[in-house]
Amino acid sequence: DFMHAFENDIKPAFGVSKDEFDSYIANGIIIWGSPVTEVLDEGNLRISQTIKSEMTPLVSILIEGPPNSGKTALAAHIALLSKFPYLKFCTAQTMLGYTEMSKCQQLKKIFEDAHKSTLSCVVVDELESFLEYAPVGPRYSNTVLQTLKLLFKRSPPKGRKLLIIATSAYRDILEQLGLAQSFSKIIHISNISTGEHVLHVLSEIEHSFSVEEMKHLKKSLANKQVWIGIKTLLDLIEVARQADDKYRVARFLASLEEVGGTV
Amino acid sequence: DFMHAFENDIKPAFGVSKDEFDSYIANGIIIWGSPVTEVLDEGNLRISQTIKSEMTPLVSILIEGPPNSGKTALAAHIALLSKFPYLKFCTAQTMLGYTEMSKCQQLKKIFEDAHKSTLSCVVVDELESFLEYAPVGPRYSNTVLQTLKLLFKRSPPKGRKLLIIATSAYRDILEQLGLAQSFSKIIHISNISTGEHVLHVLSEIEHSFSVEEMKHLKKSLANKQVWIGIKTLLDLIEVARQADDKYRVARFLASLEEVGGTV
Amino acid sequence: DFMHAFENDIKPAFGVSKDEFDSYIANGIIIWGSPVTEVLDEGNLRISQTIKSEMTPLVSILIEGPPNSGKTALAAHIALLSKFPYLKFCTAQTMLGYTEMSKCQQLKKIFEDAHKSTLSCVVVDELESFLEYAPVGPRYSNTVLQTLKLLFKRSPPKGRKLLIIATSAYRDILEQLGLAQSFSKIIHISNISTGEHVLHVLSEIEHSFSVEEMKHLKKSLANKQVWIGIKTLLDLIEVARQADDKYRVARFLASLEEVGGTV
Amino acid sequence: DFMHAFENDIKPAFGVSKDEFDSYIANGIIIWGSPVTEVLDEGNLRISQTIKSEMTPLVSILIEGPPNSGKTALAAHIALLSKFPYLKFCTAQTMLGYTEMSKCQQLKKIFEDAHKSTLSCVVVDELESFLEYAPVGPRYSNTVLQTLKLLFKRSPPKGRKLLIIATSAYRDILEQLGLAQSFSKIIHISNISTGEHVLHVLSEIEHSFSVEEMKHLKKSLANKQVWIGIKTLLDLIEVARQADDKYRVARFLASLEEVGGTV
Amino acid sequence: DFMHAFENDIKPAFGVSKDEFDSYIANGIIIWGSPVTEVLDEGNLRISQTIKSEMTPLVSILIEGPPNSGKTALAAHIALLSKFPYLKFCTAQTMLGYTEMSKCQQLKKIFEDAHKSTLSCVVVDELESFLEYAPVGPRYSNTVLQTLKLLFKRSPPKGRKLLIIATSAYRDILEQLGLAQSFSKIIHISNISTGEHVLHVLSEIEHSFSVEEMKHLKKSLANKQVWIGIKTLLDLIEVARQADDKYRVARFLASLEEVGGTV
Amino acid sequence: DFMHAFENDIKPAFGVSKDEFDSYIANGIIIWGSPVTEVLDEGNLRISQTIKSEMTPLVSILIEGPPNSGKTALAAHIALLSKFPYLKFCTAQTMLGYTEMSKCQQLKKIFEDAHKSTLSCVVVDELESFLEYAPVGPRYSNTVLQTLKLLFKRSPPKGRKLLIIATSAYRDILEQLGLAQSFSKIIHISNISTGEHVLHVLSEIEHSFSVEEMKHLKKSLANKQVWIGIKTLLDLIEVARQADDKYRVARFLASLEEVGGTV
Ligand SMILES: Nc1ncnc2c1ncn2[C@@H]1O[C@H](COP(=O)(O)OP(=O)(O)OP(=O)(O)O)[C@@H](O)[C@H]1O
Ligand SMILES: Nc1ncnc2c1ncn2[C@@H]1O[C@H](COP(=O)(O)OP(=O)(O)OP(=O)(O)O)[C@@H](O)[C@H]1O
Ligand SMILES: Nc1ncnc2c1ncn2[C@@H]1O[C@H](COP(=O)(O)OP(=O)(O)OP(=O)(O)O)[C@@H](O)[C@H]1O
Ligand SMILES: Nc1ncnc2c1ncn2[C@@H]1O[C@H](COP(=O)(O)OP(=O)(O)OP(=O)(O)O)[C@@H](O)[C@H]1O
Ligand SMILES: Nc1ncnc2c1ncn2[C@@H]1O[C@H](COP(=O)(O)OP(=O)(O)OP(=O)(O)O)[C@@H](O)[C@H]1O
Ligand SMILES: Nc1ncnc2c1ncn2[C@@H]1O[C@H](COP(=O)(O)OP(=O)(O)OP(=O)(O)O)[C@@H](O)[C@H]1O
Ligand SMILES: [Mg+2]
Ligand SMILES: [Mg+2]
Ligand SMILES: [Mg+2]
Ligand SMILES: [Mg+2]
Ligand SMILES: [Mg+2]
Ligand SMILES: [Mg+2]
Repeated sequence: DFMHAFENDIKPAFGVSKDEFDSYIANGIIIWGSPVTEVLDEGNLRISQTIKSEMTPLVSILIEGPPNSGKTALAAHIALLSKFPYLKFCTAQTMLGYTEMSKCQQLKKIFEDAHKSTLSCVVVDELESFLEYAPVGPRYSNTVLQTLKLLFKRSPPKGRKLLIIATSAYRDILEQLGLAQSFSKIIHISNISTGEHVLHVLSEIEHSFSVEEMKHLKKSLANKQVWIGIKTLLDLIEVARQADDKYRVARFLASLEEVGGTV
Repeated sequence: DFMHAFENDIKPAFGVSKDEFDSYIANGIIIWGSPVTEVLDEGNLRISQTIKSEMTPLVSILIEGPPNSGKTALAAHIALLSKFPYLKFCTAQTMLGYTEMSKCQQLKKIFEDAHKSTLSCVVVDELESFLEYAPVGPRYSNTVLQTLKLLFKRSPPKGRKLLIIATSAYRDILEQLGLAQSFSKIIHISNISTGEHVLHVLSEIEHSFSVEEMKHLKKSLANKQVWIGIKTLLDLIEVARQADDKYRVARFLASLEEVGGTV
Repeated sequence: DFMHAFENDIKPAFGVSKDEFDSYIANGIIIWGSPVTEVLDEGNLRISQTIKSEMTPLVSILIEGPPNSGKTALAAHIALLSKFPYLKFCTAQTMLGYTEMSKCQQLKKIFEDAHKSTLSCVVVDELESFLEYAPVGPRYSNTVLQTLKLLFKRSPPKGRKLLIIATSAYRDILEQLGLAQSFSKIIHISNISTGEHVLHVLSEIEHSFSVEEMKHLKKSLANKQVWIGIKTLLDLIEVARQADDKYRVARFLASLEEVGGTV
Repeated sequence: DFMHAFENDIKPAFGVSKDEFDSYIANGIIIWGSPVTEVLDEGNLRISQTIKSEMTPLVSILIEGPPNSGKTALAAHIALLSKFPYLKFCTAQTMLGYTEMSKCQQLKKIFEDAHKSTLSCVVVDELESFLEYAPVGPRYSNTVLQTLKLLFKRSPPKGRKLLIIATSAYRDILEQLGLAQSFSKIIHISNISTGEHVLHVLSEIEHSFSVEEMKHLKKSLANKQVWIGIKTLLDLIEVARQADDKYRVARFLASLEEVGGTV
Repeated sequence: DFMHAFENDIKPAFGVSKDEFDSYIANGIIIWGSPVTEVLDEGNLRISQTIKSEMTPLVSILIEGPPNSGKTALAAHIALLSKFPYLKFCTAQTMLGYTEMSKCQQLKKIFEDAHKSTLSCVVVDELESFLEYAPVGPRYSNTVLQTLKLLFKRSPPKGRKLLIIATSAYRDILEQLGLAQSFSKIIHISNISTGEHVLHVLSEIEHSFSVEEMKHLKKSLANKQVWIGIKTLLDLIEVARQADDKYRVARFLASLEEVGGTV
Repeated sequence: DFMHAFENDIKPAFGVSKDEFDSYIANGIIIWGSPVTEVLDEGNLRISQTIKSEMTPLVSILIEGPPNSGKTALAAHIALLSKFPYLKFCTAQTMLGYTEMSKCQQLKKIFEDAHKSTLSCVVVDELESFLEYAPVGPRYSNTVLQTLKLLFKRSPPKGRKLLIIATSAYRDILEQLGLAQSFSKIIHISNISTGEHVLHVLSEIEHSFSVEEMKHLKKSLANKQVWIGIKTLLDLIEVARQADDKYRVARFLASLEEVGGTV
């Protein structure tokens, strides 16, 4: 049964699971503009803070931004940058079908394991999924909320350091729930907002458009405003790639306009 | 007991169950106008996208439209068009009496099985029934909602592809619940809206009206506006067919006006 | 205990239980006016539709009207008219004390049995009682609601036909709950509304009033408006019958005015 | 434990329990005015109705009025007047600590037993206590509500008759809950409202006031308006009786004014 | 575990537990003014009423007033004054951790035991704690509410008498919940409201202030208005007592002003 | 499982656990201004009150203030100052994953143990965490609330004394819930509000800024207003310390302005 499945699902939490982290960065990290650089700088600063600080053994950051803006990939990337001996990626996906209690127990276990390592980094992806937040009601698991609040403020034992990286697309809800306040720092990642950003991404994707096509796109996209997450942009490029050569550019620009506002 | 019945109800999920799919298209797919063509085109595009895409191994579409507009039949039809080795039709009908947990477990199982095949297509019919949505309250199963949200965003393992086709008559509610946002593409199917559409359907049904009657109907329906789902239209034709020869046309036009607005 | 009692209460569902149907028409069906004829005509039409239709193997109708208007008796009567080999009368009375789950299970069983017969007719009396609807809150069983929604739309297997007849005094609530939409046709039965209707009923009841008294009543009731359900009217006649001969007519007219508005 | 206690509490329900009925009329029925006579007349009428009626084998009445107005005593009194072979007094007091389910089961049992006797009378005292109604929320047991609704409308089997007498101080709430509508007749009992009513009660109580005192009281109370339940009035008389001879009348008039408004 | 602890906590309920009652009057009953006398008079009256009454074998009073006004001590004191053979003090403190059901069961047991004695007095302290009332929501235990309502109106068997003394700081809430109405009499105890009351209390406490200090206090407090519960006043005296001799009076007056309004 | 883990987590509660208390004052108590002195004075007063009082064996105080203002450290510090033989620090952190019932049971146990010692001090940190308070709804555990209310008012047995120190960042919510009223005294700790306070803290931290830098800071911060908790200030100092020498002062002032308002 479910509970049985649950027990068999638990894997040893110690040790780095680099493969798992890589799977969340399936299409790499493209430095499409300064918003990306700023997030990575802040991430690096917090990593060294965790290592060197004396008075603050617990550093916790929240990466928040619109859907598809690359939050999960950035969180996984920063965690890998830390090279801490204990790395753990927590996602509600692996706890599907667990009772609230089981989720809390597993989260508690992960943080207790993290406290056993000198330097640990725990990613908690999509807080809203852990909270089982639904806007109609609204409904959420207060049990999970209380557990996360306590775990995010639990200092590691003397001599140990812990970096927590959480992600969410619902900053306002976390603030209403009093969970946003638990973080030392909240980092915002914005959508891609200029034609230049888009061109930067296009230039980094192999085989996407021909030199000729790129010329056309540069003209069309220069000084234009868009509003699109990196994950959605990669999807649009992918769709355009399947189209016939002659429709490719037009289709891409059309769908960019449909999804991402006026180009 | 119920749980027992439940366990015995579970059938092996692998393999194509073409007969079951056919039962949802009992009266075929009549191409009564461009709205139908557009849905089928979009469906075909998404099928080839699923097959060829590199960066997006998961494609999910939602077919939404008014009650009786043919959503279920279209979803089943597109799934059959894909000819994917793993095809699965999920409906709340087969989970009647299951606990929320059992529903979630079964849905999880279906997606896990889909992830085992190189090319899979899963239809999830009538999302509102799975969610047990009732407008007074409103009430719904948050457990099922969270499960569907996670399953609709769960990428298949490396090298595997998955096409998800969901249907619903309540697009606005799915948006309020944050579930509409999980889909790559939302496809709208409208009701039949012109006399020409109706005549097209009539011409495809055997033995419905005589040549004489059709002449009369063509005059009456030309350039008229209606608003009726294909399933309801088929019902009206059926009722008219049982009537005496002389009342047939009048009765059909009268009931069309009663149900489908001003003809 | 209760669950035990429950299991022993379940009787074999197959076969016609004419006696049970008759008990719901204890005082017969008096054709007091055109509203009654219309309901019976519509009923007959739907019966032949069920028998002959090719494209619509499932026909479902809802008989709705004010309390005491004769809904239950009419539903039972139409079901008996069909002479279908499988007839079943479902009422919340026989499921008193069942859990929501047990109710759903039993309803499911009844429909599954109905699906096994070539021609079946299932009466579901007083939907509001099955739903355990209470206006303060409001409260209702969503489990039963979802079950009924699904069962009312579940097509019988190929070659089988099913006629569903439901009754309710709360049409508006069924519409709010999205249950009214499940029916192919909603049939309204009104209260008795004219003095002529009342006189018609009186003339059909044996030993109610003497020839002399009837003369008096005809004068008093001619061209008067009333608003009373057939069941309540039969009660008033019964009460008057117990009174002394001289007070009989006056008492009857007075109580008719008290209950049924201005005579 | 509780459930155990519950099982041992159940006593055989058949047979007349006159003593129990008497205990609810501890201070007799004083005919203090026409409101009392009217209630008793209506009660007698319904008794004979139950015995003689052919078309209405189920008669149900609700006695409603302010707190302490004597509802329980009147219901018990009317039940005893019927002299029916099966008499049963149901009160929430004997079901204290039962679960909702147990209450419903016991109520069901009582009505099933009543259905086994040719002529039965069941008193259901203080509906609000059975419903566990609390105005803050509001809260109530929908399970009990649904059970009572069904039981109050369940006809006895052919050839059997049943008279139901219920009491309540919250008519408006029963109407909101749709329970008031289940009764054939609602009977109102008012508070004592004139000085004459009070004097009538005083004249029937032994040893309450001396002839001298009564003279004084007659002067004071003549043509005065009060508003007091019979139970409260008996309490005030009792309190006055304990006081010193000289203060007795003054004290009684003062407390009557305090509780029952301007004398 | 808890339930186990529960069973072991139950002590024999019969017999007078004078020591327990005394513990609730730890600092005696100081007759600081007429409000105290009035409460005690009313209490005495009710005691004799209970003993002598014929028509009202059940007398129930509610002592209500602001927090710290001495409600619990007064209730315990009146109970001891009765010298009834069965005395019982019920407080939520001894039922901490019980389920709602266990609380109700224990309350029921206490009243059943009381019904076995010819003359019984039961104190139910702090009704709001039994009800688990919390203003946010609001929330309360309807199970306990219904149980108390029934127990407070349950007459002892023939020949037995019962006096119920309840206390509460939330009269308005008891009225909203329909519980205040269950009492024969509601007795209000006010806060200490004049300087004279305060001086009376000071004069009764040993070693609190010197003769000199009292002179000063008499001047300062004469004709002043305060608003303070007896329990809070005793606290302030206690705090002042710990202070240095020269600051004592000033500190006492200052804190009296801070807590009890303008002196 | 969880419950098992729970049982194994319970440690003997008797005896002083000085190490645990110290861990909550990891960075000492810096006397940065009069708000700190006032809290400590009040704490000392209450300690001696507890020791010497005759009439009030139970003293309970609530330390409340904004997040990060040092509440927990101050509560732990005052508890250590008392040097009472029984010291206990209660925090929701150690009860993570407990059921409401288990929490209440453990709290009850702690207070029962405290009642066994002549002089006891119990710290209950972050009442909102024990209450599982969430602002959306709002939601909270009424079971824990009722338990805390009762425990905070439960007098120790004769001859024993108890000092309760609770902390909270949500005074308004405790007042709404009726919990604030349970305390003898509420002590407010404010944020650091002037540049002088900040300079005081800086002067007490070793190696934070050079003499040169301090000169600069004194100029910048003199007569400035800030609004920052001591815990947040220590964090900012820590971050600045990691920066390059030349940016150190500027960075510190900038972040102080970002977090703590206009400097
Ligand atoms: N600069 C970048 N930042 C983030 N992701 C990037 C970047 N460049 C490329 N990517 C790719 O974009 C995708 C981002 O998807 P990701 O799941 O992280 O988005 P998300 O914001 O978490 O989405 P969701 O709102 O659904 O949680 C990944 O495949 C990642 O490899
Ligand atoms: N162009 C068409 N599109 C869809 N269905 C068609 C079409 N032409 C004929 N049909 C027939 O119409 C019926 C459509 O019924 P279907 O159950 O799919 O409607 P639906 O919109 O899912 O209804 P519901 O709102 O009740 O879920 C099927 O019997 C199908 O064979
Ligand atoms: N024309 C008629 N239509 C319906 N019932 C009739 C008619 N003539 C006589 N009757 C009798 O009237 C009674 C109708 O009662 P019935 O229980 O069907 O009413 P109802 O509308 O279902 O009441 P409720 O609102 O309580 O469910 C039956 O006894 C039936 O035999
Ligand atoms: N005419 C009367 N009608 C009713 N009760 C009477 C009458 N005369 C005397 N009594 C006595 O008055 C008392 C009425 O109490 P009863 O419990 O019936 O009141 P109630 O309205 O049911 O009170 P509650 O609102 O608490 O349920 C009984 O003791 C009864 O013997
Ligand atoms: N006249 C008096 N009335 C009541 N209590 C008095 C009086 N004189 C002295 N006391 C003492 O004052 C204290 C009153 O405390 P008590 O617990 O009864 O107050 P309370 O109103 O019940 O408080 P709470 O609102 O917390 O329940 C007791 O210690 C009692 O001995
Ligand atoms: N005067 C002071 N008062 C309190 N804490 C101080 C003081 N000086 C230095 N500190 C240090 O500041 C920190 C205060 O953190 P603490 O956890 O007590 O804050 P808090 O208000 O309880 O935070 P939270 O709102 O998260 O509960 C401790 O590390 C403590 O050693
Ligand atoms: Mg993500
Ligand atoms: Mg469909
Ligand atoms: Mg009916
Ligand atoms: Mg009564
Ligand atoms: Mg008290
Ligand atoms: Mg703290």
